[in-house]
Amino acid sequence: MSFKITILGSSSALPTSKRFPSAHVVNIHERFFLIDCGEGTQIQLRKFKISFAKISHIFITHLHGDHFFGIFGVISTFNLLGRKNDIHIYSPGNLEKKVYSVINKKEIGFNIFFHRLSHENSEIIYETKNIEISAFPLDHRIETYAYLFKEKPKERNIKKEAIKEYNLSIKDILSIKKGNDFITKSGGHIENSKLSIPPYKPRAYAYCSDTKYKESIIKYLKNIDILYHEATFARDLYETAKITMHSTSEDAAKIALKANVKKLIIGHFSTRYKNTDIILKEAKAIFPKTQEANDGNEIIIPLIREE
Amino acid sequence: MSFKITILGSSSALPTSKRFPSAHVVNIHERFFLIDCGEGTQIQLRKFKISFAKISHIFITHLHGDHFFGIFGVISTFNLLGRKNDIHIYSPGNLEKKVYSVINKKEIGFNIFFHRLSHENSEIIYETKNIEISAFPLDHRIETYAYLFKEKPKERNIKKEAIKEYNLSIKDILSIKKGNDFITKSGGHIENSKLSIPPYKPRAYAYCSDTKYKESIIKYLKNIDILYHEATFARDLYETAKITMHSTSEDAAKIALKANVKKLIIGHFSTRYKNTDIILKEAKAIFPKTQEANDGNEIIIPLIREE
Repeated sequence: MSFKITILGSSSALPTSKRFPSAHVVNIHERFFLIDCGEGTQIQLRKFKISFAKISHIFITHLHGDHFFGIFGVISTFNLLGRKNDIHIYSPGNLEKKVYSVINKKEIGFNIFFHRLSHENSEIIYETKNIEISAFPLDHRIETYAYLFKEKPKERNIKKEAIKEYNLSIKDILSIKKGNDFITKSGGHIENSKLSIPPYKPRAYAYCSDTKYKESIIKYLKNIDILYHEATFARDLYETAKITMHSTSEDAAKIALKANVKKLIIGHFSTRYKNTDIILKEAKAIFPKTQEANDGNEIIIPLIREE
Repeated sequence: MSFKITILGSSSALPTSKRFPSAHVVNIHERFFLIDCGEGTQIQLRKFKISFAKISHIFITHLHGDHFFGIFGVISTFNLLGRKNDIHIYSPGNLEKKVYSVINKKEIGFNIFFHRLSHENSEIIYETKNIEISAFPLDHRIETYAYLFKEKPKERNIKKEAIKEYNLSIKDILSIKKGNDFITKSGGHIENSKLSIPPYKPRAYAYCSDTKYKESIIKYLKNIDILYHEATFARDLYETAKITMHSTSEDAAKIALKANVKKLIIGHFSTRYKNTDIILKEAKAIFPKTQEANDGNEIIIPLIREE
């Protein structure tokens, strides 16, 4: 029941030899979701040993080059590796047109489904029995979306010994998993807590980049485990952040604090910072549980039972 | 009077964490020419500390992704760095259309001149007082060109002491530099070798990738200093090379041998070779002065005087 984020790129517009442009991979229950796809993403996937075959959903936040110039290489490489499985790509703007201007559609041996985002508020864009992915608009120079990856609430887990002891039927088990008590054939009342244990807490991770400080997104981020929020600049470049519609260290930390998230990861650092300590320090002063994104970092969200 | 080649990428279609896709930079007299521009080229330029500002000519061999997917990032980064100087891009096919499908032309603050190649035999595509760059077709699955970078022949260098001794005029000097003897006012005959020294030999480097074995290119490569020739496969995959229109180790070495080049560099290795020793060994058996391309390699062509 994995829930692991791998940072593939943590720079802003200009990559450096240490920081590639934006891209994360999140592995939820061994399904891999790629978020943003800056230039060199396929190189980072190989470097950090992430299976290309396991990726079938790609989420692009916006059509600035440092967030999507790697999509051509990723698609070409999927094709060269003989991929047959569908790919779904979510993005605002007309990414499909750009992709097929560069790549010959006829040469691609698998289906690509482009899902063009264009909505207000938060919408679920993909779900399975166990997970739900939603997107909501950010505030940047062009149309941009944040992505929120959530496990669905789980039912209680039945105790194996209880099944034997009370000779429980499938129907009984389904009822107990929902939290109900159990009445035996002789009319005895068995409390649910004797028959089942609490489920694991649903885990959640959100990716918010690029954006200026936007308070209205806080409601979507309440109590989540991991918030990735861009922090392109330190506090002293507040005015630059405002003009370019990016966030500072403090902007990111304030969002984390107000949303009461468990951990904040900051990234998308401007290349002007040879050393990003100042950005981290300023964010930690407001929200201590802040971590700096570095290429290759893995962040695991552990399974914890509800109380 | 530099003439230095830097290997930015040496893989074939699929990059690895050690080998980026195709790209070389050649520095001739402190002018930098970029040849091919695979994904991640801008990252390699930074890594190997090559000034973006000094590049104003880009030569793309063909429009397979591993040779041009880095062009979007390079152009965007030039723009973000505030570039004002023109860029000239040489390529077969309609690269201009691809570039402007991905990048908004209006947002680019400098001129880009696209030069579309479409010719038989060899043609000079760019020249200055001191250098000459020509392109000739290779034999690949799509239209592909090789590029040849040559210094122009130089005149002999006048000995400073001779100017004083014989009180040489500008006209005299120009004549002596061409190799003529000198007749003094009193009718004395001074041999040229007493007045001047031989010039440096013009240096040359060619980049031939991707191509199957093509004998008709040998005439353009005669006696050059450095030949870069693709060697995607080892000998045992001769049939695969034929079908995909690539070269083997032996194909590259035979071209080098027949052209009598001074040094052969092989690259564009298929990802199936974790270790490329076998390719190098097979090439060396035919042409001993073969070197394997590795990302970051620098090859300097020294200045040598003619005899």
